Amino acid sequence: MSLSRIIGAGTFGFNYIVVTLVLIIIHHFFLKNKTMSNRRKFIQQTILGISGTALLPVIGNANSSSVKSLSNTNAPLQIGMAGYSFTKFSLEQSIAMMKRIGLSNMSLKEIHLPLNSTDEQISAAMAKYKAAGINIYTVGVIYMKTKEAVDNTFAYAKKCGVNMIVGVPNYELIEYAEQKVKEYDIRLAIHNHGPEDALYPAPGDVYNRVKNLDARMGMCIDIGHSLRAGTLPEKAIRDFKDRLFDLHIKDINTAAKEGKGIEFGRGVINFGAVIESLRKVKYTGVCSIEYEKDMTDPLPGIAESVGYFKGRMAAED
Amino acid sequence: MSLSRIIGAGTFGFNYIVVTLVLIIIHHFFLKNKTMSNRRKFIQQTILGISGTALLPVIGNANSSSVKSLSNTNAPLQIGMAGYSFTKFSLEQSIAMMKRIGLSNMSLKEIHLPLNSTDEQISAAMAKYKAAGINIYTVGVIYMKTKEAVDNTFAYAKKCGVNMIVGVPNYELIEYAEQKVKEYDIRLAIHNHGPEDALYPAPGDVYNRVKNLDARMGMCIDIGHSLRAGTLPEKAIRDFKDRLFDLHIKDINTAAKEGKGIEFGRGVINFGAVIESLRKVKYTGVCSIEYEKDMTDPLPGIAESVGYFKGRMAAED
Repeated sequence: MSLSRIIGAGTFGFNYIVVTLVLIIIHHFFLKNKTMSNRRKFIQQTILGISGTALLPVIGNANSSSVKSLSNTNAPLQIGMAGYSFTKFSLEQSIAMMKRIGLSNMSLKEIHLPLNSTDEQISAAMAKYKAAGINIYTVGVIYMKTKEAVDNTFAYAKKCGVNMIVGVPNYELIEYAEQKVKEYDIRLAIHNHGPEDALYPAPGDVYNRVKNLDARMGMCIDIGHSLRAGTLPEKAIRDFKDRLFDLHIKDINTAAKEGKGIEFGRGVINFGAVIESLRKVKYTGVCSIEYEKDMTDPLPGIAESVGYFKGRMAAED
Repeated sequence: MSLSRIIGAGTFGFNYIVVTLVLIIIHHFFLKNKTMSNRRKFIQQTILGISGTALLPVIGNANSSSVKSLSNTNAPLQIGMAGYSFTKFSLEQSIAMMKRIGLSNMSLKEIHLPLNSTDEQISAAMAKYKAAGINIYTVGVIYMKTKEAVDNTFAYAKKCGVNMIVGVPNYELIEYAEQKVKEYDIRLAIHNHGPEDALYPAPGDVYNRVKNLDARMGMCIDIGHSLRAGTLPEKAIRDFKDRLFDLHIKDINTAAKEGKGIEFGRGVINFGAVIESLRKVKYTGVCSIEYEKDMTDPLPGIAESVGYFKGRMAAED
């Protein structure tokens, strides 16, 4: 009875206004979506647009945030590789594997260029990546347990030419690290490492330590370790979006402390929800795939994972 | 003005009926969708259900067949491998690769078990596949240029224990092959091989030869060769659904005669449209991935392709 009143029980004028609004909104969504390549998604989004903006308030039964997110599915997402995936291989072998899987963004791990490298060694390594078309967009994960380690890390990052470090500073060094962030204008993305991590098991443990600091102090959410620590990564991405600088994307075989890395799509990560969250918060960083299974022969698993992630993203476009 | 009359210009009773119907439909879709794992798709389909069945007729602007296809997106699709992908490897190596990529359905190619094998050789090979958990669901592609070849092919298929052959009979042998199909109760899926194929370049060239024959005479659409021959595979799947028994799924780098195999997602196949068509026609066969790039080292490309196809399918669930 009350619902019939909401949709305008009996007044001709109110109905006329509703119909006019619906027609305007249909027109708006047809124009907005006409560049979409996939006809099905076009029709889907048009209808959802209508439902979400005009009809749902009428029928009074909607999760408006979920509906809204559906209209944000076209934000581009960049894929990369976390260098740790190639930890059993040389720099040259890791480049060969990057080429094979067709990715160019890479997070450089110390194993391929130690922190105590000379300037010449750093230049030579970076030249090799550049020549191969590999974009080293960050370094890490680097652990900082002393002031000297913080100093070395920022000096190293500067020499590598990156504007972001993925790192793990001891609590008592966070303030000092913030000083270095300001001094170098290099962002620090603190990495969560799951239940065994005494400092930052879950993304929230990072966020609480950086949320009131310089805006360049943020986080690299490792979605596998996040889920192992009991935090849904799709929720963490939304909750901590203002400090989200980098991502380690992986799948794990069980949503528990003992969860292990597995080929994407064979485990328990809800990639659809993760991608939806990334689109919703308009994430502009890199989604770095980190693959930790079969580490002496990882290429097939890495390739399957890259393919899976690309397939899921493409389907959402 | 006329639209406002359609939604019930001013009559309280009509509005009440509309609201009641909407509530019933909401209830129906909540119950229907409650087992879906992906909350977003759940909300999406619920809204689409409402839009498609109740609201769209009201606003008078809908492609009802497209809307209908959206509600058919949950048909299961099985993935397999076309044995030709492993043509440079032994039977044992191909089994090892199947295990690595986590697939169990396989189309057996002669290279791994020649047509002139003895009964013992066939039994031994099939036992190896069975022990490894590999389901040989068909044999092929087998070319049949003589009556003897047709005889041998059907005898071989029977010994292998399959109920389908993917094959290419000369035109003059189609009628004889149909006799064998009836005699053995083994289906024949004729394979299209692109512009260079003098007999069956495109799926339509197969369809026209089998459409009036026994219902067990059908086709294996090779989506890459189909596109190279100028036929959109997503259209061929819909057009020839009544004779579609098997699929060779691949990507190609250009939609032209010179198109070559490439990792899925890097080429021009519209996988979203292909999957949508398969769901729409409720395809119950296997989607056999055929990978023809880097044939001496195909595993990374195969794995990336399997991952991509699984990712696209999962996103559509």
